[in-house]
Amino acid sequence: MPDLPAFRALRLEGLDLISYGPAGLPQGEADGLVLWLATAEQRGELLRWPGLKWVLTLTAGIDHVAGALAPDVTLYNAHRLHDHAVAVHAAAGMLAAARGLHHFRDAQHRGEWRPRRDLSTLDGARVVIWGYGHIGRILESLLAPFGVRVTGIRSSTPQAERDEALAEADWVVLLLPNTPQTRGIVGAEVLARLKPGAWLSNQGRGSLVQPEALLAALDSGHLGGAVLDVTDPEPLPPGHPLWSRENVILTPHIASTTADLVQRGAEYTRAFLEELRAGREPQGRVARGRGY
Amino acid sequence: MPDLPAFRALRLEGLDLISYGPAGLPQGEADGLVLWLATAEQRGELLRWPGLKWVLTLTAGIDHVAGALAPDVTLYNAHRLHDHAVAVHAAAGMLAAARGLHHFRDAQHRGEWRPRRDLSTLDGARVVIWGYGHIGRILESLLAPFGVRVTGIRSSTPQAERDEALAEADWVVLLLPNTPQTRGIVGAEVLARLKPGAWLSNQGRGSLVQPEALLAALDSGHLGGAVLDVTDPEPLPPGHPLWSRENVILTPHIASTTADLVQRGAEYTRAFLEELRAGREPQGRVARGRGY
Repeated sequence: MPDLPAFRALRLEGLDLISYGPAGLPQGEADGLVLWLATAEQRGELLRWPGLKWVLTLTAGIDHVAGALAPDVTLYNAHRLHDHAVAVHAAAGMLAAARGLHHFRDAQHRGEWRPRRDLSTLDGARVVIWGYGHIGRILESLLAPFGVRVTGIRSSTPQAERDEALAEADWVVLLLPNTPQTRGIVGAEVLARLKPGAWLSNQGRGSLVQPEALLAALDSGHLGGAVLDVTDPEPLPPGHPLWSRENVILTPHIASTTADLVQRGAEYTRAFLEELRAGREPQGRVARGRGY
Repeated sequence: MPDLPAFRALRLEGLDLISYGPAGLPQGEADGLVLWLATAEQRGELLRWPGLKWVLTLTAGIDHVAGALAPDVTLYNAHRLHDHAVAVHAAAGMLAAARGLHHFRDAQHRGEWRPRRDLSTLDGARVVIWGYGHIGRILESLLAPFGVRVTGIRSSTPQAERDEALAEADWVVLLLPNTPQTRGIVGAEVLARLKPGAWLSNQGRGSLVQPEALLAALDSGHLGGAVLDVTDPEPLPPGHPLWSRENVILTPHIASTTADLVQRGAEYTRAFLEELRAGREPQGRVARGRGY
């Protein structure tokens, strides 16, 4: 498990806990691996440890693990550790955009007191949540008191139904995982289906959106703006045109981050290990062959 | 009534509607006055029109009218026109602060992809709403799904109870009106009662907060930050120290503004006049001698 104080503090009778960290990897073997905050190189090495029966990745996405896993290793993810924060982050970005907080922050730097009228409360706004799962349901419950009307769509939604929902949307919120099927799913054709002035929020994976199509839709003014916690490429390099778009609200892949996330991750791990030790199936098991 | 297209479009049988606007004031007399978006000078003149029986101010606050009103004139305000938007604006500011959107906006201008850990979801946060009326109740309902714990306090709350609530607060949201009793109510003593790191949101009136005490609490780091839609002085002049405080989120008194506010104001006025014409008491009557 990760070499962090909150994890080192875990004591579970009968379990021998080994830490890895930035300083290096221990040698040996293990029944299970709790994977978090490791470099890509460390991750590759850890996943090849002899004897592994299970891997718990303390992330919601599994695309960084799934391909490297031996076929007899059981994979668990930890979406419940992240779902609430991601939903809150998505709601915060939508409300900030609706209230013009990005514009007012820019005006603040210029020392300008300049009211603007192009503001809303999201009341009556039609929001399409694309990738409507755990996070989507939480987001819907957070937005309900604001008078938002949510339509959830999934991979299994028929295309005609999906296109109809997109054509009516004031907001499209992407919460899809990164799989071969979702890569580049939002391109010029999807963006053109949106009403002029609609906003896009991507809280899923940067790979979902074709970068050139996004920039073109922003430049033409067809897209009202975008709230992006994930980008392609990621991290967004210095000088990338998205940095300087006034109507793009960018955060650096922190939708699920909270000050107590590591502590919560350690508690999640303790509960997980207690379930395993008691011979029960912990939550979060990823069905074999499923990309999320 | 104001000389705006949405108001000029009002047709109410039996009523003679006269417009005033930036171009100037008409001459004559009127039974009633719908007051909105007038300069202080125009307002003074309009309130002295002969024959006035009632005044409807399409604002929530009445401090700009109350003192200038003849004793036999009935005053109505329009808080219902503004309550929802102000509550949404207050919620948006709190969520933006919790998710660090102000910091990330600044980083975006520098082209910096730099995650930070000092973020929260407001889950479990203790929020004191000071001036707990219509807006406060809406704000509480908006924040409830986020796991916020709200304590409402009012002018009538005993001081010991008030001080106890303040001492436990992660957020204090000011929604008080401007009256002789509320002026400067938040000074050094109140700010010192807050926990270190607590945030202040002022969505009421700039006059509620003593400006030097606010700056001192920000400078000492005792206050975690502030979300201000109203200031003292207002507008905030160029070069004022609040503009450059990183942990101050400023908006220019637009909490109740939406793109459709003028249209909504006209509809509100139509409903008001229909009530009056039908001999019913319209909503929003301000009790004589009450400052809000």
